[in-house]
Amino acid sequence: MTIKELVREIKKKQSFLCIGLDVDLDKIPKHLLAKEDPIFEFNKQIIEATHHLTVAYKPNTAFYEAYGIKGWQALDKTINYINHHYPEIFTIADAKRGDIGNTSTRYAKAFFEDLNFDSVTVAPYMGSDSVEPFLAFKDKYTIMLALTSNKGGLDFQGKNLDNNEPLYKEVIKTSLSWKGSENLMFVVGATKAEHFKGIRDIAPNNFLLVPGVGAQGGSLEGVCKHGLNKKNIGLLVNSSRGIIYASHGEDFANVAQKEAQNLQDQMAKILTNHKII
Amino acid sequence: MTIKELVREIKKKQSFLCIGLDVDLDKIPKHLLAKEDPIFEFNKQIIEATHHLTVAYKPNTAFYEAYGIKGWQALDKTINYINHHYPEIFTIADAKRGDIGNTSTRYAKAFFEDLNFDSVTVAPYMGSDSVEPFLAFKDKYTIMLALTSNKGGLDFQGKNLDNNEPLYKEVIKTSLSWKGSENLMFVVGATKAEHFKGIRDIAPNNFLLVPGVGAQGGSLEGVCKHGLNKKNIGLLVNSSRGIIYASHGEDFANVAQKEAQNLQDQMAKILTNHKII
Repeated sequence: MTIKELVREIKKKQSFLCIGLDVDLDKIPKHLLAKEDPIFEFNKQIIEATHHLTVAYKPNTAFYEAYGIKGWQALDKTINYINHHYPEIFTIADAKRGDIGNTSTRYAKAFFEDLNFDSVTVAPYMGSDSVEPFLAFKDKYTIMLALTSNKGGLDFQGKNLDNNEPLYKEVIKTSLSWKGSENLMFVVGATKAEHFKGIRDIAPNNFLLVPGVGAQGGSLEGVCKHGLNKKNIGLLVNSSRGIIYASHGEDFANVAQKEAQNLQDQMAKILTNHKII
Repeated sequence: MTIKELVREIKKKQSFLCIGLDVDLDKIPKHLLAKEDPIFEFNKQIIEATHHLTVAYKPNTAFYEAYGIKGWQALDKTINYINHHYPEIFTIADAKRGDIGNTSTRYAKAFFEDLNFDSVTVAPYMGSDSVEPFLAFKDKYTIMLALTSNKGGLDFQGKNLDNNEPLYKEVIKTSLSWKGSENLMFVVGATKAEHFKGIRDIAPNNFLLVPGVGAQGGSLEGVCKHGLNKKNIGLLVNSSRGIIYASHGEDFANVAQKEAQNLQDQMAKILTNHKII
């Protein structure tokens, strides 16, 4: 998928929502456990109930790896289902990978070619040659951790360097000089909304994947104030638990739809208010 | 496994060698490709040829993920084979994982419980709550990236903070204050041998997993000069390609054994010279 296609889809759906498919067998409705593949069955029903409201799905690989080979089969079936039925939807493997060059190439092939995700999240700590192998894939996107939404996010990301800039800014700036950086996006947590202005100063056009709205306490308005970009919107705001576990009963898909609808309504208003649509 | 057991094994074998099982179907001997599971078959023969010379095996998960479900099956069979036949050998899942708290717990369970590895490598960028869930497992070890051996390793790890210390030192220092830090080890590349003294000043007793000897150009003597620790040795030196791909012919296991033997001979001399055995 190209950025142009993603932007077109956002404008068409009036939504820059990403739904996190973080499936935990302890949290899904009990009646699904009798199914042959409860994880895939859950995802399928969530996708059927929300695909018209969201522009992206983001399975976090940890939840699938936790179930071993069965988990990987469910991930494989889920991405194939999305690609087959809803090819217009942007897919994100939330894997946070990163390794030395030849090894990163392996991860890139696994997610971009074998599983055919549109994008994958990566960690920056190992530097240029750990990320560039991902950036080499055409029309595939590499979403690098910059400023994360979790409690310990600032432990290192917020450390000031000797140029008096925090590490996360250096990470963004440096990565924009890497080969293939036109395929870079960044993870910036909604819980750090006050930092969006500074980030937009150094990365005005890159898409930002924003977790932390909802369960983690981030505000959609706060994120959009400086995060939105008139040219290409530039935001994908993720909600996982707030949507997929809004109900633990047999009505889970309907309730998930309502939660997604609620966020899409807010997003449509924001896009209108910012004169983007 | 406990550290005491690992140290006993090192002294018994006079070896602190770790062998990286990074299996690439393009590089293994052609005759194995006819087998039902070429990856596992390759690993089994390498293990049979080297288990008396090494104290650790380290499959890098990227190489298994690249083959999808078949790759995960091969990883599962490999770790089960080692745990069943050679339970005295320390096992490392080289996965470089790290995510927000509840998600890191998923990864920890996948590697420590389901696959039953003794240890896993993790990335520090997301801070305390991304690593502490791994540290919570008793007699399991979390090997955090500190100073890596690759070309881009210093891009961020080498950046000076406003206290005039490089980031990697801050990462090590800070992590030693985390809950469960007695289960921490660190990745320090052999290509950065001049930094071992400074690292030992702040982490005198933690085990260091050292990649980069051999193919990447690091020197064993250089690493041991300041890295070795009289109390518990404190080093696991990894070689992957230099051992497992020393021959691409039918004699690959024998040639791998010779390469491992060569490193073990050097390690025995070093342990003797340092009056550790």
